[in-house]
Amino acid sequence: VAKRLEKFKTTIFTQMSMLAIKHGAINLGQGFPNFDGPDFVKEAAIQAIKDGKNQYARGFGVPDCNAAIAERFKKDTGLVVDPDKEITVTSGCTEAIAATMLGLINPGDEVIVFAPFYDSYEATLSMAGAQVKSITLRPPDFAVPLDEFKSAISKNTRAVLINTPHNPTGKMFTREELDTIASLCIENDVLVFSDEVYDKLAFEADHISMASLPGMYERTVTLNSLGKTFSLTGWKIGWAIAPPHLTWGVRQAHSYLTFATSTPMQSAAAVALRAPDSYYEELRRDYSTKKEILVKGLKDVGFKVFPSSGTYFVVVDHTPFGLENDIAFCEYLIKEVGVVAIPTSVFYLNPEDGKNLVRFTFCKDEGTLLSAVERMKEKL
Amino acid sequence: VAKRLEKFKTTIFTQMSMLAIKHGAINLGQGFPNFDGPDFVKEAAIQAIKDGKNQYARGFGVPDCNAAIAERFKKDTGLVVDPDKEITVTSGCTEAIAATMLGLINPGDEVIVFAPFYDSYEATLSMAGAQVKSITLRPPDFAVPLDEFKSAISKNTRAVLINTPHNPTGKMFTREELDTIASLCIENDVLVFSDEVYDKLAFEADHISMASLPGMYERTVTLNSLGKTFSLTGWKIGWAIAPPHLTWGVRQAHSYLTFATSTPMQSAAAVALRAPDSYYEELRRDYSTKKEILVKGLKDVGFKVFPSSGTYFVVVDHTPFGLENDIAFCEYLIKEVGVVAIPTSVFYLNPEDGKNLVRFTFCKDEGTLLSAVERMKEKL
Ligand SMILES: CSCCC(=O)C(=O)O
Ligand SMILES: CSCCC(=O)C(=O)O
Repeated sequence: VAKRLEKFKTTIFTQMSMLAIKHGAINLGQGFPNFDGPDFVKEAAIQAIKDGKNQYARGFGVPDCNAAIAERFKKDTGLVVDPDKEITVTSGCTEAIAATMLGLINPGDEVIVFAPFYDSYEATLSMAGAQVKSITLRPPDFAVPLDEFKSAISKNTRAVLINTPHNPTGKMFTREELDTIASLCIENDVLVFSDEVYDKLAFEADHISMASLPGMYERTVTLNSLGKTFSLTGWKIGWAIAPPHLTWGVRQAHSYLTFATSTPMQSAAAVALRAPDSYYEELRRDYSTKKEILVKGLKDVGFKVFPSSGTYFVVVDHTPFGLENDIAFCEYLIKEVGVVAIPTSVFYLNPEDGKNLVRFTFCKDEGTLLSAVERMKEKL
Repeated sequence: VAKRLEKFKTTIFTQMSMLAIKHGAINLGQGFPNFDGPDFVKEAAIQAIKDGKNQYARGFGVPDCNAAIAERFKKDTGLVVDPDKEITVTSGCTEAIAATMLGLINPGDEVIVFAPFYDSYEATLSMAGAQVKSITLRPPDFAVPLDEFKSAISKNTRAVLINTPHNPTGKMFTREELDTIASLCIENDVLVFSDEVYDKLAFEADHISMASLPGMYERTVTLNSLGKTFSLTGWKIGWAIAPPHLTWGVRQAHSYLTFATSTPMQSAAAVALRAPDSYYEELRRDYSTKKEILVKGLKDVGFKVFPSSGTYFVVVDHTPFGLENDIAFCEYLIKEVGVVAIPTSVFYLNPEDGKNLVRFTFCKDEGTLLSAVERMKEKL
């Protein structure tokens, strides 16, 4: 293996999902629904395949898909973007992240991330040769230590990576946090890469897109995807929205990472993204109910549960159960209890920071959530 | 844009396909069929979507897809591989190439390529920080200058990239060439990355897989895809086959480039790859006819046509028509004649080497091929 990837292990999601299968455990680990996506989107994909939309897409996206992404972005943020010059469709948001790093970051550039962070951030920053500076968000509220952020910025800082709503904690960056980050980025000429794949799963306040803040669009790459919002995580449609000069870098990397993304799935994505508001409202209602079930259950089991206001994840402190760290706890949970959670220490530069925390997902049907809680009540 | 991608332009395929649309020209440029893939494969994808196979695939591939790839590889090469340890499913062969480079090549490693080469080779080698050494294959037969190859190997040589059948020339590496390359690679402990996406489009001799040569499997990454063989270039299913120690590197990069590939499309790929031999025979028969039509037409037009024994491409010398180079010729062809071809100079480290050559594809229905020839006869 090349040195740039030497320190990384098999992704924790793969590890845990394979263990779930092996031990017949209930999988509240990797974030994928155990229910299906909506029929109108599946029908659109089927129709596209039947209609012969089966050859290479335009490299940066099927025109109608780029158009639908622009329409939704306008609806969500008020920003008008050129679908053909400012949007790149990718093979999932994971590819959009990789293309952003490889397309815009030079070796030695400093990039600030907030820990805990989605594991691909660190790996793709390593591929790009970036210097990673990590700022830890701490329970109970995972607030951004703004002074620490300010001191982390140097003249070599090229970008800051944010993720709101935030995986794994469920934290949503507040307007005050975003404003402060934005003005420091403008002042210091720093880019923002903003991963907003859970934007439609905001349960309390409205989601705020970094790009919508004054002066920010021109320095922001907004990353998003279809999978979470439409319960079709296996379709792997993501995108990056950015002004033309940043889009150029993203597209150059994308061209040589995958060239283009599945044509029929992009046609279906165009249909999905034009769903009426009622679709998104119902999605949120459904997930609110699931969240309540899981949060109540986890409290009853005896965890300290930290408030999650977005995403389909919730983080708990497992220390009441006396295991030495998050990895040991998750192992016990799989083998002795039959439930899979995700240890969070892999999401920090310093694993110690995450050793008390594990993540559960509630993107499962209610019966599954209840059974998992039942198992934990019995055996933990 | 990051420095690693500074020298690269929009891929020639995208440029040319966009010009084709703009000028209403017949597109014999980018290699995608203008006819649809087989119904039994499309039906399998539709069924998978209906059956709810819509969530994240296992990161390195849907088990049945990996199994089908292993079965086909055994049929083709006689080699038995472990589908779960030696195969990685990717978002097209382009991703398999990127993952191989980023997962196995360190900055400063020397990698030998044969020019003309598919453009993503150079771009992904640049991402990996490799030193590229290019050996030019020259018309009329594009034979490998074996002495030059031998001298190009140094103690820093990590890998050699081969592509057989070869895009853009249609050359197939001969057994003698492969044997010599293989023994030099074994002697010097060099890896081989072998792009074999056109393996089923071998018209004269049988395709030879580098991995099937004695002692080679353990040092070879075999790259392939569904798109060309099943006329479904827009589905973006590719794969890498390699022994576990090389697969580890490929998978580590793949995990963070795209994480996983479309689940329903992988289910369909599993069905496709188990097609009876008659499917492949018919495919070859169809393409032989198309090739004859195009080659005869191009000769009638007045080109010097170089023999193509594999792929769906043919390379010609355009100099009888007096344009100064391949780019100027292709521009004239689009604007004045209404036909798109691909200039080859972009496929060389030294563009001069390709200035007399342009590539035409025959992956189009016969009417389209005949119309293109007609236009050239009239207006060239
Ligand atoms: C790409 S696998 C991870 C899915 C996910 O977003 C998560 O579980 O955090
Ligand atoms: C990935 S676009 C290029 C298609 C192709 O393989 C070619 O035209 O050479």
